[in-house]
Amino acid sequence: MLGWSIWCGSARRWKNRNRPLVTSVAEDDAPTKALGETQVTVASDIEIARAARKLPIQTVGEKLGIDADSLIPFGHDKAKISAGFIDRLKDRPDGKLILVTAINPTPAGEGKTTTTVGLGDGLNRIGKRAVICIREPSLGPCFGVKGGAAGGGYAQVVPMEEINLHFTGDFHAITSAHNLLSALIDNHVYWGNELGIDTRRITWRRVMDMNDRALREIVSSLGGVSNGYPRETGFDITVASEIMAILCLANDLADLEQRLGNIIIGYRRDKSPVFARDLKADGAMTVLLKEALQPNLVQTLENNPALVHGGPFANIAHGCNSVVATKTALKLSDYVVTEAGFGADLGAEKFFDIKCRKAGLTPSAVVLVATVRALKMNGGMAKEDLGQENVEAVRLGAANLARHLENLGKFGVPAVVAINHFVSDTQAEVDCVKAVATELGSEAVLCHHWAKGSAGIEELAHKVIQLAEKDSKFSTLYADELPLFTKVETIAREIYRAGAVTADKAVRQQLAEWEMQGYGHLPVCMAKTQYSFSTDPTLRGAPVGHGVHVREVRLSAGAGFVVAITGEIMTMPGLPRSPSSERIFLGQGGQIEGLF
Amino acid sequence: MLGWSIWCGSARRWKNRNRPLVTSVAEDDAPTKALGETQVTVASDIEIARAARKLPIQTVGEKLGIDADSLIPFGHDKAKISAGFIDRLKDRPDGKLILVTAINPTPAGEGKTTTTVGLGDGLNRIGKRAVICIREPSLGPCFGVKGGAAGGGYAQVVPMEEINLHFTGDFHAITSAHNLLSALIDNHVYWGNELGIDTRRITWRRVMDMNDRALREIVSSLGGVSNGYPRETGFDITVASEIMAILCLANDLADLEQRLGNIIIGYRRDKSPVFARDLKADGAMTVLLKEALQPNLVQTLENNPALVHGGPFANIAHGCNSVVATKTALKLSDYVVTEAGFGADLGAEKFFDIKCRKAGLTPSAVVLVATVRALKMNGGMAKEDLGQENVEAVRLGAANLARHLENLGKFGVPAVVAINHFVSDTQAEVDCVKAVATELGSEAVLCHHWAKGSAGIEELAHKVIQLAEKDSKFSTLYADELPLFTKVETIAREIYRAGAVTADKAVRQQLAEWEMQGYGHLPVCMAKTQYSFSTDPTLRGAPVGHGVHVREVRLSAGAGFVVAITGEIMTMPGLPRSPSSERIFLGQGGQIEGLF
Repeated sequence: MLGWSIWCGSARRWKNRNRPLVTSVAEDDAPTKALGETQVTVASDIEIARAARKLPIQTVGEKLGIDADSLIPFGHDKAKISAGFIDRLKDRPDGKLILVTAINPTPAGEGKTTTTVGLGDGLNRIGKRAVICIREPSLGPCFGVKGGAAGGGYAQVVPMEEINLHFTGDFHAITSAHNLLSALIDNHVYWGNELGIDTRRITWRRVMDMNDRALREIVSSLGGVSNGYPRETGFDITVASEIMAILCLANDLADLEQRLGNIIIGYRRDKSPVFARDLKADGAMTVLLKEALQPNLVQTLENNPALVHGGPFANIAHGCNSVVATKTALKLSDYVVTEAGFGADLGAEKFFDIKCRKAGLTPSAVVLVATVRALKMNGGMAKEDLGQENVEAVRLGAANLARHLENLGKFGVPAVVAINHFVSDTQAEVDCVKAVATELGSEAVLCHHWAKGSAGIEELAHKVIQLAEKDSKFSTLYADELPLFTKVETIAREIYRAGAVTADKAVRQQLAEWEMQGYGHLPVCMAKTQYSFSTDPTLRGAPVGHGVHVREVRLSAGAGFVVAITGEIMTMPGLPRSPSSERIFLGQGGQIEGLF
Repeated sequence: MLGWSIWCGSARRWKNRNRPLVTSVAEDDAPTKALGETQVTVASDIEIARAARKLPIQTVGEKLGIDADSLIPFGHDKAKISAGFIDRLKDRPDGKLILVTAINPTPAGEGKTTTTVGLGDGLNRIGKRAVICIREPSLGPCFGVKGGAAGGGYAQVVPMEEINLHFTGDFHAITSAHNLLSALIDNHVYWGNELGIDTRRITWRRVMDMNDRALREIVSSLGGVSNGYPRETGFDITVASEIMAILCLANDLADLEQRLGNIIIGYRRDKSPVFARDLKADGAMTVLLKEALQPNLVQTLENNPALVHGGPFANIAHGCNSVVATKTALKLSDYVVTEAGFGADLGAEKFFDIKCRKAGLTPSAVVLVATVRALKMNGGMAKEDLGQENVEAVRLGAANLARHLENLGKFGVPAVVAINHFVSDTQAEVDCVKAVATELGSEAVLCHHWAKGSAGIEELAHKVIQLAEKDSKFSTLYADELPLFTKVETIAREIYRAGAVTADKAVRQQLAEWEMQGYGHLPVCMAKTQYSFSTDPTLRGAPVGHGVHVREVRLSAGAGFVVAITGEIMTMPGLPRSPSSERIFLGQGGQIEGLF
């Protein structure tokens, strides 16, 4: 299940499951204040979300200087920011970009989205204009495992149900655009295959936003002459679509269309690539994605603006929210708080080397999220024992934290550690984490945003501002000009601290071919387990000298990166024996039950 | 291509293609007035739609007494009417229901939707409160043949592009709910098949809103143990989903959930049915469809309210807009103008015998749409010759019109003929149609709504009001208690005027089994070519004594009807050699080009 584990992280709904439920925070009335007098205990995420006093989305937009006409409403609490409005922002100065990343994820939960939302609220609380930029969750996995991906506790974005289900239809639009291209490919072959596509070498599959393992591998076009030429193909889940990555990297509609045209759908018998442009598919696909490219505005529980837009996989893609959303937010605020998928070895590296490189973004500070519990697991403790104090385990596990902190230094961006507080944490454990951070010239700040909202994260907010005041010395890890495999080696050695970095001859040949074809300047997108710096998900802490073997490479010519795969990649999940869909229903008053 | 022809009609985008373009109506300024001073000639449908002066959707809602809070906006020109608001209408009296139907369709075009929209505008023009209820178009076919299904000329609903593409996401929601059930079926089998589903007898397929012939027949679950048990299956286009029919027949969310649970997904080895309820899928599917069940409010070019909601096939389903939309419109207005798919032999019959029967609706009047051109084709003229006057051909073809008029009388609803005017029509031809109608105790009214908007259809509006004033003597064609095959025979004899009505032994046995299982009370839904009263699409006019052979029957236990199939049924279209997607793109200013 290595492949499966690679998959899970990017859907962001397997996290924070083990958060101890605080039954009372009567000694601290911050959450009560934030949410109104009816709320006297810290309830479940969904109960808190339902009790939220949402403002009309136009009022949230006003805070950012967006007039009501420039918001395209979806209901009363969601809106897209119109492309026309975004165009008019071009000459404005940019705010500062803050990345929230984390140690390697564990089943204990780290709370990266929660901290991203909390920090955004915290910055607003201390008088700064801050916007949160996070990814959109995928619909399909909601019906597999009880989920929800919009923060937690008193640091959430709302409306939670809608964001997790159809939201503003972006993923449906991506599904449609992807499958239009798929249909055009088989249709082209059906009508005579003028382009000479080698049907054995069609790499473009179909997508569905559903966990459906039966569609992973299929034979299509059965049933005789009128249905075409049978061939092997299959479906991925929508978030794995290259179009998802393209939507998240495109600067505007013209760039989107260009990238869609660049998609390689397969190869001829002479191995020359066939592009989506050759099928004249790019125009219609752009039409289908026209609305989806506009970022979605929602709000936090504290009525601060959040842009929730795009959600590419963090393995075969770069795992960040859209460039359009991030750039728009930078024009509208002093601080933009965003997150990247998985731990810093994967998420932050891709954020810097793919998103920031390609979009010309300069991050000003990084927040590295850790929990005492997760560090204890990294230090060797079993999940069932995490309730017990164990400073030694924290100290051992902090090697993982230290390694990430060191790595972040290589990108020239100042970093601070956020300790996302759990009620079971002891003072000694917290002090141990703080000491590790201090030793490395950084600092660790204890944060209570989950239980207290913005009131619990003021210290971190001040610290982040202080870091961001410095001149950013940001640089990517490797230059565009390096050979593709050298880029892989650089990441593996500098970030993963690997020893031997190997690849089969076929992989090296493929990379050489792409370099010849003019793709050598692209960044590489690593697909590796998120649970370890190594390719072995059981190797926690801070391993060194391990081997990294690249067993497959893929070219995402539209998105603009080469994917290097170091394990099994699962791009279509399945459902468990008892899927959560069995317990999802509409309750009294039309409320959705069982989704979270 | 019989099957294909059965398919085409219900997507409503192969119509009005041959409308002669009027280059100037300078002698009549009605359209100019309706649309503003920049409009001096009758332009193409899309040019007219773009020049529309839309009101904010809240203003359109106000006309119906819907407060802004009860509208769920999708942009500034589309909204859903909230379920809560609809609940509060229960005790209001109903307005009168007017059905617009047509003669058998021909390549000449009849203009049923155009007349529906025009009549709605006409009723508003003469001071009545009228709402238009039509179906939502399907996205997939837009990329095959240049299309558009929102009326034409100066009788259109807007925003045209959005209505034809993602609109408010209803079809995407239906796709998701359908495919969730599909995934749950294979997942159930994968984990041990506790329900004992016979995988050879799974009737529930998957759907996609795309013309993709390669997916008609597939083998799924290939690739080994982790992907499940391989089996033959396939995809239909979303409008063919039983869930589409269910959404359109459900009275409310509780009814929707009940019907979803009633869906038969396949059979056990002992042929006992397995229901969606057995897979505990109904709750989650209802959650996915919660928003989609709320009707969509848009406006006509003249700013009158139109509900565009639901779009089931008119062959394997009943081809009408949603019951929720129709019932809501009846509570909000004095007159509701709606249409049914195909000609009156299919569309009107199903409207009366399925929709009205099940929803308890009592139609007050019927408008039978015809064009001189279509009657000439029915009278034997070739399409290329339609520009020439030919009164004899009109007289011959009017046999088709006369037959439909007679048939409508069997349902006890008064009917009037609307002659949808084309510039090539001569006075003698029009007079001939009028004479035929008069002979049958009805009346034919010449309508100019396409060129003049509401100003061109006042006479029809007055006539409809006059008819609707009478007490409706509406009755369905057959009683619930009749055996299923007797219902088929009744429709074939009374409406199609068939001679022998036959079916294979297996079909009769299947019907008997369903009667034993308690489905005998259901209405039947005929799947027949729309081009003829007979099952032979080339047999125009008013044939009698032809044979009708039922070659297959299907049970839609969730929707609540038995489908009787009299030809090949194509439930997944393909794309043409040069699909229209090749010419669709975003033009200057982000306008969609090539879609219409």
